[in-house]
Amino acid sequence: MTQLLSIILAAGEGTRMRSATPKVLHPVGGMPIIGHVARAAREAGSTDIALITGPQHDAIRKAVTALHPGVTHFEQAVARGTAHAAAMARPLFEKAEGYIAVVYGDHPLLRGVNFRAVLNRLDAGLDVAILGFEPKDPTGYGRFITDGETLLAIREHKDATEDERRIRLCNACILAFRAEVFRDLIDKVQTNNAQGEYYLGDLVELANAAGKKVGYGVAPENDVMGVNDRSQLARAEGLFQDVRREDFMKAGVTLKDPSSVWFSYDTEIAPDVTIEPNVFFGPGVVIEAGADIHAFSHIEGAHIGRNASVGPFARLRPEANLAEGAKVGNFVEIKKADIGKGAKVNHLSYIGDATVGANVNIGAGVITVNYDGFNKFRTTIGDNAFVGSNSSLVAPVTIGEGALVGSGSVITENVDADALALGRARQVAMPGRARTIFERAEAFKKSKGK
Amino acid sequence: MTQLLSIILAAGEGTRMRSATPKVLHPVGGMPIIGHVARAAREAGSTDIALITGPQHDAIRKAVTALHPGVTHFEQAVARGTAHAAAMARPLFEKAEGYIAVVYGDHPLLRGVNFRAVLNRLDAGLDVAILGFEPKDPTGYGRFITDGETLLAIREHKDATEDERRIRLCNACILAFRAEVFRDLIDKVQTNNAQGEYYLGDLVELANAAGKKVGYGVAPENDVMGVNDRSQLARAEGLFQDVRREDFMKAGVTLKDPSSVWFSYDTEIAPDVTIEPNVFFGPGVVIEAGADIHAFSHIEGAHIGRNASVGPFARLRPEANLAEGAKVGNFVEIKKADIGKGAKVNHLSYIGDATVGANVNIGAGVITVNYDGFNKFRTTIGDNAFVGSNSSLVAPVTIGEGALVGSGSVITENVDADALALGRARQVAMPGRARTIFERAEAFKKSKGK
Amino acid sequence: MTQLLSIILAAGEGTRMRSATPKVLHPVGGMPIIGHVARAAREAGSTDIALITGPQHDAIRKAVTALHPGVTHFEQAVARGTAHAAAMARPLFEKAEGYIAVVYGDHPLLRGVNFRAVLNRLDAGLDVAILGFEPKDPTGYGRFITDGETLLAIREHKDATEDERRIRLCNACILAFRAEVFRDLIDKVQTNNAQGEYYLGDLVELANAAGKKVGYGVAPENDVMGVNDRSQLARAEGLFQDVRREDFMKAGVTLKDPSSVWFSYDTEIAPDVTIEPNVFFGPGVVIEAGADIHAFSHIEGAHIGRNASVGPFARLRPEANLAEGAKVGNFVEIKKADIGKGAKVNHLSYIGDATVGANVNIGAGVITVNYDGFNKFRTTIGDNAFVGSNSSLVAPVTIGEGALVGSGSVITENVDADALALGRARQVAMPGRARTIFERAEAFKKSKGK
Repeated sequence: MTQLLSIILAAGEGTRMRSATPKVLHPVGGMPIIGHVARAAREAGSTDIALITGPQHDAIRKAVTALHPGVTHFEQAVARGTAHAAAMARPLFEKAEGYIAVVYGDHPLLRGVNFRAVLNRLDAGLDVAILGFEPKDPTGYGRFITDGETLLAIREHKDATEDERRIRLCNACILAFRAEVFRDLIDKVQTNNAQGEYYLGDLVELANAAGKKVGYGVAPENDVMGVNDRSQLARAEGLFQDVRREDFMKAGVTLKDPSSVWFSYDTEIAPDVTIEPNVFFGPGVVIEAGADIHAFSHIEGAHIGRNASVGPFARLRPEANLAEGAKVGNFVEIKKADIGKGAKVNHLSYIGDATVGANVNIGAGVITVNYDGFNKFRTTIGDNAFVGSNSSLVAPVTIGEGALVGSGSVITENVDADALALGRARQVAMPGRARTIFERAEAFKKSKGK
Repeated sequence: MTQLLSIILAAGEGTRMRSATPKVLHPVGGMPIIGHVARAAREAGSTDIALITGPQHDAIRKAVTALHPGVTHFEQAVARGTAHAAAMARPLFEKAEGYIAVVYGDHPLLRGVNFRAVLNRLDAGLDVAILGFEPKDPTGYGRFITDGETLLAIREHKDATEDERRIRLCNACILAFRAEVFRDLIDKVQTNNAQGEYYLGDLVELANAAGKKVGYGVAPENDVMGVNDRSQLARAEGLFQDVRREDFMKAGVTLKDPSSVWFSYDTEIAPDVTIEPNVFFGPGVVIEAGADIHAFSHIEGAHIGRNASVGPFARLRPEANLAEGAKVGNFVEIKKADIGKGAKVNHLSYIGDATVGANVNIGAGVITVNYDGFNKFRTTIGDNAFVGSNSSLVAPVTIGEGALVGSGSVITENVDADALALGRARQVAMPGRARTIFERAEAFKKSKGK
Repeated sequence: MTQLLSIILAAGEGTRMRSATPKVLHPVGGMPIIGHVARAAREAGSTDIALITGPQHDAIRKAVTALHPGVTHFEQAVARGTAHAAAMARPLFEKAEGYIAVVYGDHPLLRGVNFRAVLNRLDAGLDVAILGFEPKDPTGYGRFITDGETLLAIREHKDATEDERRIRLCNACILAFRAEVFRDLIDKVQTNNAQGEYYLGDLVELANAAGKKVGYGVAPENDVMGVNDRSQLARAEGLFQDVRREDFMKAGVTLKDPSSVWFSYDTEIAPDVTIEPNVFFGPGVVIEAGADIHAFSHIEGAHIGRNASVGPFARLRPEANLAEGAKVGNFVEIKKADIGKGAKVNHLSYIGDATVGANVNIGAGVITVNYDGFNKFRTTIGDNAFVGSNSSLVAPVTIGEGALVGSGSVITENVDADALALGRARQVAMPGRARTIFERAEAFKKSKGK
């Protein structure tokens, strides 16, 4: 395959987001916008990726390189236009062979196939190919001035004549070049425009003037939507979700109300999983076949085994690991814990930093006390143990196999296999006393007036 | 009324569902698809219903006969086409009088009125009447070849000419016959087609050839949507829900955000009930007038009395029974329990297998300990009793009327009326000890490095 | 500014709501419909507001005057038409100067700008100006019979000719008059119609007959939608929410799925707040910059400080007050409580009538026992204290700064600063006893048969 250097531009300010966070770091499907662009560049077969950011945006570099370690970062110290930004990648493109694609970093729905739409045109003999699309409302977009298959120029909306404004085909977000053509032309861009900036779009006319073959590819409108404000961010999120929902249903996952289930970019779900309305997936979730995810569940970083049952009202936090047939019920939080095969944590419990054996029954209101304010400690519960309701297991502690913890106990010492452990006071009864107490309370209420 | 035998075909494989569960058993509005079809057949006045399934689909028979005990089941041992499947009902149609309707089992939104649309045509003198509809996109559907009101043939999409493909009226899912006409023709169907199968649609041409009067009825597109994959299943669910939502609002139920409330096929709600966003109803719920259902509630098999209040974040499981003015609040699960008039279970509680008297106040975090790992036991709480927070009531146990259980108690023995019961340890204070413990924990954290 | 008397008509029965509550008291965005109309009248600069209700609707008067104390209430004892209702405000309009606007009380999306659309026409010299709109489907609405800019009459749908029914411009819900013109004409309205009622619309023809200048203003359809049944109520709620969602996103608030977040009319949110799907805001919520509101949260009357974190599955009730960086996690209810800077209440707790200091850590399952069945008492927790899991704090009680409460304790007495407090029984172990108990339980289960 031809070599490909992708230059991702992320030096813009994104002021319409009204955010202290750089625009391209706002997430879509749980991944920063720019992570999606880098992923698409990878999918398209990029052999090198350059990331261009502004001077105070080291957070962007960190986020992208965390997701894609091979990316090379360049800083554009002063904002002087998109061509100037792309030129920051000179150390990479000076020696680049094959193709160079310049892509805007604020397009979260971009896919490898959108790169291919222009790279294929280079394969077919063009020197330059720009990605276009036909927006429902072209107002504001640069229009493609064409002559047959040749792209002559990109005309900014504000500079376009009435006639030109009727053109439907508009500039999207990827510009692709043969490497030597890009190298020859990039320094010839001038600043003869109102803003006095170096514009990438000018490369189209420069290439034509130099006798190069310039054309275009086309992308579906949804793929190339850019994000400039939070309303567009929400729209991108919605489009992203709709694609994932449809994909999962095609693959045999039941979504009772698709629009009320939110996936992450990396959610993995096997066929014959049923998901009720209102389920939220953060990153890192894997669900095996036959599992049931009930309504109102919030799940991140969890592995859910075959035929396991989750919710309603369950919260699985990172490193929750449910074995086959395990059940996690309502108002239960699981964190960094293995829940064994067929084990049940059905009601009102917090299980954190724990190993729960097979067929264990955790009663309602049980809490693993894993934190002393400074350190986290681990609770281990053996197979077939039964932990009575409202008990507290103060870690580090081990409950042996087949052991029984009485309801309401505070367990601070290990419990042997098959042993019964109690940690609670004897019941004391005071006949008639309730009546006295209630009368007193009522009198007190009256004494306070009203 | 004329007798009617309905033959429901459910012998297909439904492979596009990618499911171990037979297609027609996937639920819509909490009832299997085929249950809806049988319900529609009943509504239409069927005096007999035949169910045809494939050989390994006894689960379908079970599901349908559980909902409709009178249904007679026939197995089609080998898949040889729809006419062959319908012929399996021979023991019933051999002696049938009146009408015979053959209907596809994968149409969950079908209603009695859709049967009537063709049966009325028989009443009007036709011998055969087929249900048609005008889909927005007719691609893939069999077209109705008509001559005025006469239906000449059903042309499969793949066999249709360009001109025929422009026909809007398509084959839906019900074929209705005078019983004697059906009997005469069903064995004349041939397998002269590419698949070598016996097709029901061929009865149209056979009937015309035999000089019978053949026509059609028409159904709205939504009523006759078939389900072939999970995407269509979700769409059917959405359409089903939209109808129910509109019906309830017309009847005087407030839905603040209708699209976020999910009903079951049998949900019953009186006027002047208010339902906040995000409420999920499983089967078997009845709600009386004036009740408030707050957001994020999950309710199945429950009866909610007049002016009762549920949620937010409440879960009512089967046999939860709330009397007038009862309140079940946030993070509370109620199962197989009667909650008395004006009683309150406001926070973080599990009440299962219990009888809670009138005006009882259940504190936060109270748990009925109803399960020993093998058996379930019952808790009974008398009127006006007050159960302090974080208490565990170990069943079988009875709390008398007007009794008071102190916070944090584990109650294993019955409490008399008006008595105070405590089961908790004395408070012990160790001055300055917290500081020492925190210092030690901090030191331990440091000792582990970092 | 010219003086303006607004007369709000709310004397209708609203039977299509099928409700014991008067129609105009049903809420949209957490405020009664009529409250929105009064707010719009205020926005438009009303110097006086008259409210007209039927005889048994004192609840309407109470609701409106609670929101807008200056409103004057008049009762229409017998329903004799809209002009008769408006005439009830005679004590106010007898001495009114400037303008009089009569407005229907069942239009929850009305804004000040809609009043301005007709008042501006009076400013421009007209004597009478009626608000019109162009509904997508005009069926049922009164049509504006015009001659150029002059409004000649309002023709009721049922009285309109075929030609008149083609008119798109219809009667909305505000009629504006110069005060003296209204005074002159209001008593001239006759009852020569089928119902024998006094109709406000007749003022248009009366004014024309008196040689007055009569015209109209125009409003967007959504602004002037009336609510007559619960389906329209839901639609109004949806439109109201969509406006608020868009406004917040423009202002820099991230809504991951805007359609699943429900605001109240008075919700205040600073920029750079992130709101996950499925969050419900009741009235009285203020959120400061940088806060994160996780999915499945239900929030009313709460103040959420900078960078605080709420949910998932959190419930904040009125007077919950979270300081900067405080965290309220899953299955936690906060009511009338101040949660200090950086304090954490992460799991399964109820904190009510409490003051929680800075950096306090509240363990899982902790409950403030604030209620004795008659009185509410307060819990105070000093800075840096640590309350162990599953503890109950029986109010009134004070936990000193830096104190430590052991897990599972019931605290009924004050705890000194830096002290450790325990209130739990010693752990007791009975070797092998669990096995015996399980065997017995299993035997009992068998003995019951099955």
